[in-house]
Amino acid sequence: MKITTFIGSSRANGNTEILTDIVTKNVTHRRIYLKDIMIKPIHDLRHDMKGFRPVADDYDQIIEAILESDVLIFSTPVYWYSMTGLMKNMIDRLSQAIRDERYPELKEHLKTVNAIVVTVGGDIPRIKALPLIQQFKYTFDFLSINFSTYIIGQGRRPGDVVKDEQAVAEALLLNEKLKLESKSNAH
Amino acid sequence: MKITTFIGSSRANGNTEILTDIVTKNVTHRRIYLKDIMIKPIHDLRHDMKGFRPVADDYDQIIEAILESDVLIFSTPVYWYSMTGLMKNMIDRLSQAIRDERYPELKEHLKTVNAIVVTVGGDIPRIKALPLIQQFKYTFDFLSINFSTYIIGQGRRPGDVVKDEQAVAEALLLNEKLKLESKSNAH
Amino acid sequence: MKITTFIGSSRANGNTEILTDIVTKNVTHRRIYLKDIMIKPIHDLRHDMKGFRPVADDYDQIIEAILESDVLIFSTPVYWYSMTGLMKNMIDRLSQAIRDERYPELKEHLKTVNAIVVTVGGDIPRIKALPLIQQFKYTFDFLSINFSTYIIGQGRRPGDVVKDEQAVAEALLLNEKLKLESKSNAH
Amino acid sequence: MKITTFIGSSRANGNTEILTDIVTKNVTHRRIYLKDIMIKPIHDLRHDMKGFRPVADDYDQIIEAILESDVLIFSTPVYWYSMTGLMKNMIDRLSQAIRDERYPELKEHLKTVNAIVVTVGGDIPRIKALPLIQQFKYTFDFLSINFSTYIIGQGRRPGDVVKDEQAVAEALLLNEKLKLESKSNAH
Repeated sequence: MKITTFIGSSRANGNTEILTDIVTKNVTHRRIYLKDIMIKPIHDLRHDMKGFRPVADDYDQIIEAILESDVLIFSTPVYWYSMTGLMKNMIDRLSQAIRDERYPELKEHLKTVNAIVVTVGGDIPRIKALPLIQQFKYTFDFLSINFSTYIIGQGRRPGDVVKDEQAVAEALLLNEKLKLESKSNAH
Repeated sequence: MKITTFIGSSRANGNTEILTDIVTKNVTHRRIYLKDIMIKPIHDLRHDMKGFRPVADDYDQIIEAILESDVLIFSTPVYWYSMTGLMKNMIDRLSQAIRDERYPELKEHLKTVNAIVVTVGGDIPRIKALPLIQQFKYTFDFLSINFSTYIIGQGRRPGDVVKDEQAVAEALLLNEKLKLESKSNAH
Repeated sequence: MKITTFIGSSRANGNTEILTDIVTKNVTHRRIYLKDIMIKPIHDLRHDMKGFRPVADDYDQIIEAILESDVLIFSTPVYWYSMTGLMKNMIDRLSQAIRDERYPELKEHLKTVNAIVVTVGGDIPRIKALPLIQQFKYTFDFLSINFSTYIIGQGRRPGDVVKDEQAVAEALLLNEKLKLESKSNAH
Repeated sequence: MKITTFIGSSRANGNTEILTDIVTKNVTHRRIYLKDIMIKPIHDLRHDMKGFRPVADDYDQIIEAILESDVLIFSTPVYWYSMTGLMKNMIDRLSQAIRDERYPELKEHLKTVNAIVVTVGGDIPRIKALPLIQQFKYTFDFLSINFSTYIIGQGRRPGDVVKDEQAVAEALLLNEKLKLESKSNAH
């Protein structure tokens, strides 16, 4: 089982990353920090006669990571009750990627993928991050990705999330599951 | 009454812009196309000792437009059940803007602002764009902006939205209101 | 085209009924006032060996009205951000109705039905009634009912809803559509 | 610390009750089975000159239980993506209760209450029960009740919920917390 984790935060070692670290502890995975690569906003050319044009940025990395993964972890702090702009641009570009002739297998591959969302917010996230979860659900449904589970943590100041016992308990449980599945799929 | 419209689409003359045109017809307003200016993703330094650093991009235009407006129209197509990445980066940067010492009046000014959201989606938007509306609501509440109203239109192919009679009726009604208010406030 | 309207309010001539009157003006339809009939809460016996038992109340009226309708209008005030208990009990009993051997055609019939929701609330309903709309959507999806449209009006004091121009405009538009469809289907 | 648990299910020993049993194990509390008492739907007379009339049913029990509690646990299966009609009628009647001259202290008391929601559904409840959670949130906000936390479990067949490891882990954690608080508040 191969896992890729997309880190959508704009700063290192934030609460969301800490919670994601618990989820992925001792689990082999690839980690992509969106803040460290360049992803341009999509230019929607679905209805243009010539279709989408190649974009000179790092997005191919994203596509290739998805193609080699069975599990995708979307790790994003709650910025203004939604995913970060960094992650949103990554998601938006999927509209182009699933039409990219260089990756004809992408759409079919996505149907085999399991997705996990890890997010931490400061303002009652267990309520106010629910629209974000719903949006991920709609997106995964559209792409026939299976939405395995999500964890919403609470934290405002650096490190706060470790005090959110419920989120930590959920992260530990998910970590156990990922370790187990990684092992059984390694055969 | 001064109005600024932020156009979050990545292409010109999309359905959302068409619907926004109906809303703003014969209403004096400033229009900012986010696709034509450069806004970098936020670098969250709220918890950094030195705080946020100046960013070399066009964001000051956004702040200045907000400061001189009584009404803000957020016009965004539904991309993946959410606002576009272009608009999300604009929103994210508000976290920095409200702490920017060059604009000490911004937070107070926002409390006097009325916001309108215009959005068009292709996949049952009157249901699936509701999380997006909820996120705008939470955001406006946080900033004490008054959420005047929103219009959700349906359209997939270019120009489709004009066939959405309900959205067009709502847009016309809102246009009447804006024209009336512009007039009465001009005295 | 046959239409049944379920009125879920506990009082006569409330705002929701006023808005529903606009929607159905000059449109032939059957109207059932839930407050005037007796519907017991469901007793969930799906997992009981003997299954559901006959219930001595007026629910058969509901089933029979559904069976003879092409369009169902669910008209409910927003009580505590949700449909009224009167209407909820009606909805809950669908779990029994779709398993009722006396109505083997019900499930298939529901797949041909168009549903409309009309609701009025006092506390920012265009935001806070959205979970209610989402629940109707999930329910209609489960039953393969087509969710035609919904109208959310605002009103606190008796009669207030007529001042909600947007809701009234939407209701008039829907009324036009229903009149047109009633006529063309009458042939 | 005094706790009352309202059981909204229509059958005994359902999944929601099992999950609630874990939450309340070894915690002193009062338990009210809504299916075993009689609560009439509200008759909304807020705008009637004479106001609400006394209702001959068991609702006073509910009010009195609330008045003597610090913690309220709302335990309801997900019926059609919402609370049960049994529980909805209980909630609806709060509109009358907070205006009931026999209980002038109710509104103030509610502001001191902590609420917990426990719910189990069969159809992807961690997504599709979110509107229900949002509605509880709006309701608690309106009444200034503190929304402590919620647990959403998954289960379709009798007993299934014990296989939902995440929900069980959350329930155990909450149980620990309630035991601790009960003890420290007993002094």
